Amino acid sequence: MGMSGADLANIMNQAAIMAAKSKATQIETIHALTSRDVVLLGEARPSVSKVFDERTRHILAAHEAGHAMAALLLGPDPVTRISIIPRGPSLGVTFMSPVKERFVHDNDYMLGQVMVLLGGRAAEQVVFGTSTTGARDDLNRATQLARDMVCAHGMSALGLQAIGEGASPQLQYEAEKQIAELLKDAMVRVVDALEENKGLFEELTAGLLEREELFEEDIALALGNHGLVSRHPVSEEAKIAESA
Amino acid sequence: MGMSGADLANIMNQAAIMAAKSKATQIETIHALTSRDVVLLGEARPSVSKVFDERTRHILAAHEAGHAMAALLLGPDPVTRISIIPRGPSLGVTFMSPVKERFVHDNDYMLGQVMVLLGGRAAEQVVFGTSTTGARDDLNRATQLARDMVCAHGMSALGLQAIGEGASPQLQYEAEKQIAELLKDAMVRVVDALEENKGLFEELTAGLLEREELFEEDIALALGNHGLVSRHPVSEEAKIAESA
Amino acid sequence: MGMSGADLANIMNQAAIMAAKSKATQIETIHALTSRDVVLLGEARPSVSKVFDERTRHILAAHEAGHAMAALLLGPDPVTRISIIPRGPSLGVTFMSPVKERFVHDNDYMLGQVMVLLGGRAAEQVVFGTSTTGARDDLNRATQLARDMVCAHGMSALGLQAIGEGASPQLQYEAEKQIAELLKDAMVRVVDALEENKGLFEELTAGLLEREELFEEDIALALGNHGLVSRHPVSEEAKIAESA
Amino acid sequence: MGMSGADLANIMNQAAIMAAKSKATQIETIHALTSRDVVLLGEARPSVSKVFDERTRHILAAHEAGHAMAALLLGPDPVTRISIIPRGPSLGVTFMSPVKERFVHDNDYMLGQVMVLLGGRAAEQVVFGTSTTGARDDLNRATQLARDMVCAHGMSALGLQAIGEGASPQLQYEAEKQIAELLKDAMVRVVDALEENKGLFEELTAGLLEREELFEEDIALALGNHGLVSRHPVSEEAKIAESA
Amino acid sequence: MGMSGADLANIMNQAAIMAAKSKATQIETIHALTSRDVVLLGEARPSVSKVFDERTRHILAAHEAGHAMAALLLGPDPVTRISIIPRGPSLGVTFMSPVKERFVHDNDYMLGQVMVLLGGRAAEQVVFGTSTTGARDDLNRATQLARDMVCAHGMSALGLQAIGEGASPQLQYEAEKQIAELLKDAMVRVVDALEENKGLFEELTAGLLEREELFEEDIALALGNHGLVSRHPVSEEAKIAESA
Amino acid sequence: MGMSGADLANIMNQAAIMAAKSKATQIETIHALTSRDVVLLGEARPSVSKVFDERTRHILAAHEAGHAMAALLLGPDPVTRISIIPRGPSLGVTFMSPVKERFVHDNDYMLGQVMVLLGGRAAEQVVFGTSTTGARDDLNRATQLARDMVCAHGMSALGLQAIGEGASPQLQYEAEKQIAELLKDAMVRVVDALEENKGLFEELTAGLLEREELFEEDIALALGNHGLVSRHPVSEEAKIAESA
Repeated sequence: MGMSGADLANIMNQAAIMAAKSKATQIETIHALTSRDVVLLGEARPSVSKVFDERTRHILAAHEAGHAMAALLLGPDPVTRISIIPRGPSLGVTFMSPVKERFVHDNDYMLGQVMVLLGGRAAEQVVFGTSTTGARDDLNRATQLARDMVCAHGMSALGLQAIGEGASPQLQYEAEKQIAELLKDAMVRVVDALEENKGLFEELTAGLLEREELFEEDIALALGNHGLVSRHPVSEEAKIAESA
Repeated sequence: MGMSGADLANIMNQAAIMAAKSKATQIETIHALTSRDVVLLGEARPSVSKVFDERTRHILAAHEAGHAMAALLLGPDPVTRISIIPRGPSLGVTFMSPVKERFVHDNDYMLGQVMVLLGGRAAEQVVFGTSTTGARDDLNRATQLARDMVCAHGMSALGLQAIGEGASPQLQYEAEKQIAELLKDAMVRVVDALEENKGLFEELTAGLLEREELFEEDIALALGNHGLVSRHPVSEEAKIAESA
Repeated sequence: MGMSGADLANIMNQAAIMAAKSKATQIETIHALTSRDVVLLGEARPSVSKVFDERTRHILAAHEAGHAMAALLLGPDPVTRISIIPRGPSLGVTFMSPVKERFVHDNDYMLGQVMVLLGGRAAEQVVFGTSTTGARDDLNRATQLARDMVCAHGMSALGLQAIGEGASPQLQYEAEKQIAELLKDAMVRVVDALEENKGLFEELTAGLLEREELFEEDIALALGNHGLVSRHPVSEEAKIAESA
Repeated sequence: MGMSGADLANIMNQAAIMAAKSKATQIETIHALTSRDVVLLGEARPSVSKVFDERTRHILAAHEAGHAMAALLLGPDPVTRISIIPRGPSLGVTFMSPVKERFVHDNDYMLGQVMVLLGGRAAEQVVFGTSTTGARDDLNRATQLARDMVCAHGMSALGLQAIGEGASPQLQYEAEKQIAELLKDAMVRVVDALEENKGLFEELTAGLLEREELFEEDIALALGNHGLVSRHPVSEEAKIAESA
Repeated sequence: MGMSGADLANIMNQAAIMAAKSKATQIETIHALTSRDVVLLGEARPSVSKVFDERTRHILAAHEAGHAMAALLLGPDPVTRISIIPRGPSLGVTFMSPVKERFVHDNDYMLGQVMVLLGGRAAEQVVFGTSTTGARDDLNRATQLARDMVCAHGMSALGLQAIGEGASPQLQYEAEKQIAELLKDAMVRVVDALEENKGLFEELTAGLLEREELFEEDIALALGNHGLVSRHPVSEEAKIAESA
Repeated sequence: MGMSGADLANIMNQAAIMAAKSKATQIETIHALTSRDVVLLGEARPSVSKVFDERTRHILAAHEAGHAMAALLLGPDPVTRISIIPRGPSLGVTFMSPVKERFVHDNDYMLGQVMVLLGGRAAEQVVFGTSTTGARDDLNRATQLARDMVCAHGMSALGLQAIGEGASPQLQYEAEKQIAELLKDAMVRVVDALEENKGLFEELTAGLLEREELFEEDIALALGNHGLVSRHPVSEEAKIAESA
């Protein structure tokens, strides 16, 4: 979820407008962060949220809590916010903030991203024993990441060969088998993590159902409630917010 | 069978014209519902119905009753009307009204939709021991739904991999085997439901042959005649109609 | 062999011209039927027929008699005429007239059409023990019908899955095996019917060689000669002709 | 080697010019036949023939004699001329004249045409124990005929299914295996015929080497020399020539 | 990494500008070499380097040292410089200078180039036991070289056949298996070389971390420290630099 | 290596210019032959030759001597010149002059051409035990010839079927296996010939290294030195040169 120069300019303009509307004398951090959400994800649509029935809200909350759990326990970056307020076409979102600018990604990072993407579906299975259509985009992106690992980065048993569009059907199939196995193993790890930390998972889900958004400090609190400490440093974002 | 804003405007205009034609002082519910049918399905063509021979009428009635049975016993939404009055290119239609606006669909919902689509063909087999060309569109749509479940939503034994157009022929074939099995299992469930509830099935078929259209209250009555209660709440539509 | 509105207008115009040429005061049924043949099949070309040698005429007569036999014994509709007068690109033709307007076709109807199409080739094999290039178009159309049964109507052991152009090569092949088997079984049934009713078959062939065209009443007579009664009602066409 | 109306007009014009050049008072049969060869095959190029070495001439003569032998012993039509005078792009040619206008072709006719086409290659193998590039076009056309038999006319063990461009790779391959077998069996029959009639074959080859062209009466004489009588009636062409 | 005439002109112009900027009275070798790096690789971006964390710098240094080790121990050409100063899109670079202009490449040369390309990934595995996305371009180029060996130069067990885009899927797959095996064997050789010369490898890595660039004389010194002598002659470039 | 009319005109013009430059009063044979080389192959580039190192020159000499050996011992035409003077894009060339104009090619001729093309690679393996990229074009052309033999001329165990672009993947693969086997067998024959005539091979290689070009009379002499006589007649070219 990179940001172009045009995005940045757009965000600052929107933040300035928000600041003006709220009669602030300058752009506050809150204006910048809200503006960023609007520009990158679309305007929050709380009205849509109101038509969800209880089961749908529960599924959405568990789905986002699942992404967050995978990120907290298995992913590369700290979670800065979890939300079930619909934004743009999305019904929920889990925000992560990279610990640092990365120039190369290693095998663990790639696999971590795959597991974060599978967290939503894992939650559906652990809580409801079902699968929903809400994970379609997650599965697409996880498949693409796994494909890159196997076909471009030589990160599978298939070896170092770059496998492109001109590959033979049989080699393509072998790559697909690697991708399937990689996704299956990743899913097992995420499901295990959710089940081994069911208390935390339920607390996050309940928090979302109650408050719709959880922030980095809420998450830290929840981790503490279950005798856990974050594997990640505090995000730059949280530091800025705190100092603001 | 979603409805666009343009559809909606069109329906209201047609309803106003109908109201004017019938010299009503305002648009009644009946005008709105009739107008909706015309806009979404095409003008009713009872004249076509007259040229059907008895066997064809029986097949059409059983086919629609089959869709309705699957919806009543296995589908996600209440049935609001069953009709063998031809409309547009269609020789019969079973109307369902979603209990609620859905934002994500789970595995059961998807499978339920597949079974409703297969209800017509199942009826042909149960009543006449044959298959007709009338199910062509149903099979197309059921296949597409099953494909989405297997290839986009990770809802089969093939796992979570997103399977798109660039997939290898072998993986495509494995997906097709999953689709075939999913359809076969769904068909068995629908046929079983029809056979286990033959009394209700025959009553609905007979009702259609006699009256050409059955409404939500007719269906409730028929369910009651066989000691059954609907699995679904009364539709919003029926409530509106009742209060009108 | 459907007829468009334009065809109909064309037929009536041609009939009017024929009536005028023959100085009739009004369009007679004979004008309408002849006009129909010309518009749908092309002008009769008896001159071509004269250059056929005896063997070719025998093959053509047996071929058309084969289609007619399959239609009489296994097909869905009554045979109204059999002809070996070349018309347009066609060297012979067997006319059938649908008993009724059909809105859905069942498995038996489809299979019956396939068997009628295979009747010509079956006759070549039964009478001459050979195959000719004259069945090319029949085989094309029978293959297409069988493909529809297997791929669009779920009428084979392959199940309900709709099989389109994007199907995997392996599934396409499995569909082709079903088509091949369906055609093979249909051929066996047609060949058996021809051999079990050799007397009738020879009488129709001889009739064609002698008179070039046989009409519904000729066919009824031939059936009677062999202790058979038509499986089909008298065609609307024959009734009109009789009452004219 | 059909002839269009334009071809015919062209032939007659050329014949008129030849007649005028030779100061004949009318178009003689010889003018018409020579004109036909020029229009359909190209101008004779005897000068090219002079640069052939002995072995090349022997190969060409045996090749054309091979076509003629296959036509005489296994083909459907009488041979009217055999020539090793190069015409247009062709280094030799065997002329056949259909006994009659054919409207349908049976299995034997098709197979006969295939065997005539393979006669040239068979001769290369029988006389020189080698294969040359001179049979390229023959093999192309024989393959195409065999493909039509298998894929369009249902004349193989593969059955009646029409096999077009959209066929699965596996079915295409099965068709190719049928084509290969059909060609192989045809080749065996041609080689056997050449070997069993070696005397006639050598006489025709020697005649071509000596005189460059053999006509229908030369061929009849050669057949007689070996106690054989033509399987075909005298061609229309020969009758016209005789009566001229 | 060939150089066009336009590149050369561009390099000399840039060198002249550099010389002018540094107030030199003429273009020095240092101006020409720096200019060459800028034109071929892009401007050095030391500022980017500063944002790398320690682990990233260590990975980059080991990666480049791995390329250099493979070149020194297994490759065809002397290494003239190793750098972890980012240039253009590249985060590090290992420079080699061909001993001579080559007109044909033998099997050993091709394999040597493959091994140099795999040196970076081999280093990641030997030092960190992981794989990174930084080797993507290396794997692409090594795969392409291996493909050329197998498909264009007949340098594999698959034999001499040229294998182009029209090859059958099965032959393409067999070629891919050869490519995979070739890459696997090459990787084993590089990993073995790195492990057998761990002292040198670590010294080069440490040198890069400390000084960011190592030159031909640094490398010679390092080789000497481990009792090794370069397999390659001193590069022309080094000779020029020395004499400058 | 055919020659068009335009080529011929071009050659004669260039020859006239050369004659004028050398102040000859008429075009001599030497002008015509040199002009031919320039037009068909490109200007000789002896300057490039000077930058070859000893090993490269040895490889090039052995490579061309290999082509010549295959032509002398296994090919259809006499060798008129062997050269390692680079011309155009080519680093060496072996000239052959057809004994006669050929109109059809037999199996032996085709195989002979394949073996001449493989002679260069065979020499690399016999002398250096390696393979170089210099044979790329040879392998392409040998593969294409072998493909023609198998797919267009029915000269393999695959039989007479013409195999074109529409062939099934499996048949294509079977053709490729035939091509591979044909090339492998041809290679064995060439390698055997080189090894059995190592004296002659070394003499030709040494002659090329010393004098850069060997002519028909040099080759005859070398053959004689090893008790061999050419299998081919003296070329027309040599006769003209001698008489000049």
